[in-house]
Amino acid sequence: MCELLGMSANVPTDICFSFKGLKERGGNTGPHKDGWGIAFYQGKGVTTFKDAQASHQSEVAKLVTDYPIKSNVVVGHVRQANRGRVALENTHPFTRELWGRYWTYAHNGQLKDYKSLPQGRFKAVGTTDSESAFCFILSELAARYPDKPPARKQLFRLIKKLSDRLKQQGVFNLLLSDGEYLFCYCSTKLHWITRRAPFGTAQLSDVDVDIDFSQETTPNDVVTIVATLPLTTNERWQAMAPGEACLFKAGEKVELL
Amino acid sequence: MCELLGMSANVPTDICFSFKGLKERGGNTGPHKDGWGIAFYQGKGVTTFKDAQASHQSEVAKLVTDYPIKSNVVVGHVRQANRGRVALENTHPFTRELWGRYWTYAHNGQLKDYKSLPQGRFKAVGTTDSESAFCFILSELAARYPDKPPARKQLFRLIKKLSDRLKQQGVFNLLLSDGEYLFCYCSTKLHWITRRAPFGTAQLSDVDVDIDFSQETTPNDVVTIVATLPLTTNERWQAMAPGEACLFKAGEKVELL
Repeated sequence: MCELLGMSANVPTDICFSFKGLKERGGNTGPHKDGWGIAFYQGKGVTTFKDAQASHQSEVAKLVTDYPIKSNVVVGHVRQANRGRVALENTHPFTRELWGRYWTYAHNGQLKDYKSLPQGRFKAVGTTDSESAFCFILSELAARYPDKPPARKQLFRLIKKLSDRLKQQGVFNLLLSDGEYLFCYCSTKLHWITRRAPFGTAQLSDVDVDIDFSQETTPNDVVTIVATLPLTTNERWQAMAPGEACLFKAGEKVELL
Repeated sequence: MCELLGMSANVPTDICFSFKGLKERGGNTGPHKDGWGIAFYQGKGVTTFKDAQASHQSEVAKLVTDYPIKSNVVVGHVRQANRGRVALENTHPFTRELWGRYWTYAHNGQLKDYKSLPQGRFKAVGTTDSESAFCFILSELAARYPDKPPARKQLFRLIKKLSDRLKQQGVFNLLLSDGEYLFCYCSTKLHWITRRAPFGTAQLSDVDVDIDFSQETTPNDVVTIVATLPLTTNERWQAMAPGEACLFKAGEKVELL
């Protein structure tokens, strides 16, 4: 199993605080020692830091913790390998271009019979169930809409339907983004929190660090964090229900159905 | 214009020394201040560090200089914007998946009429001539060979032919890799050097740093570096001729034609 971390914000925001908590689960407070990765969107562009090493020991993860990379959407992951050996090509998140946008994906869970998933335009480079499922989703989207995406509701309803199908093959907790929207699907566990004014102080669960967000933000900032398990001890996170999907844009939850 | 940096090696090798030279051209000894990026292959996997900031000031570039990331193939770039504004989505190198391999591309030069290049399966996310040319090349490859690549010679001859065509639209110096091969195309300037035993000492041109490779290597190591202009002062680099293509695998030049 693995841990997911996502962010959607209405202003470029760094994720140093949350990543500090997640990173510890990568081989220290958690067993997810088989690589980690994090993708930062800036507009339509994306840059991804990833490493097949445990995040709590990684020099690159140290940079991501210490150096505030400002971004509107983040998709992050620490890995405990089940399907697919420990290798860079098996490290999440995965990114592919479709319709002139970069789609970035991270998965927590395990899927049976993933080798029987139909392959289309997108092909897996590594050997994980996760990447096969990602290529399946994008290939289905591209097969139905080869040149441009449908309207937003139609698109994300279809992605939810494909996620429902994948959930039948095992555990499928998902983060998926095109840099504008952050789509989250809960198969077994996924939590989120939206922070907005008045901002308070938050205390990480995995390491003795707190932050006073009122010192770091402006009154108009809206920032949603999504994680497998709550990352802080003194805030109220929303638990998603199995089979539930959430869609965020600029920090706010938008209606999906 | 921009500067290119590529590496092909038969053992995982870091590029700290060469990148140290290139980085200075990103806003210090050179005018290429509009972003930089570098992709490292490990097997079929690739991780890319990129930043729309000048490399000589970037914290991420500092990490890439100081922290030896071992890799068999590297594709790097520092940018001086001409077509396309300074933004992450316009920062090289660009990566797309085709045939279950990640293809990574960096371009030096400027192309006229690039908006008229036929678009196919691959679409540009940003607004550069470079990314349009990359999508054109991959779309042509995918149109002719939708499911799997042809034999190596056939494939790279076709890529050379497409490069010849792009050269007619302006300046098109190119690095392209699938993680196994490094393809280099010279339109105006591109240089390479292969280092092998007996290794000596090299002195960077852009900053007062030298390295004794005999201390860093084993006698069987073969490492080729490709750059727009030679990066060292005391070694003999090969200048490529306009219209010439070179293909490297595991550090060695392989026959293309």
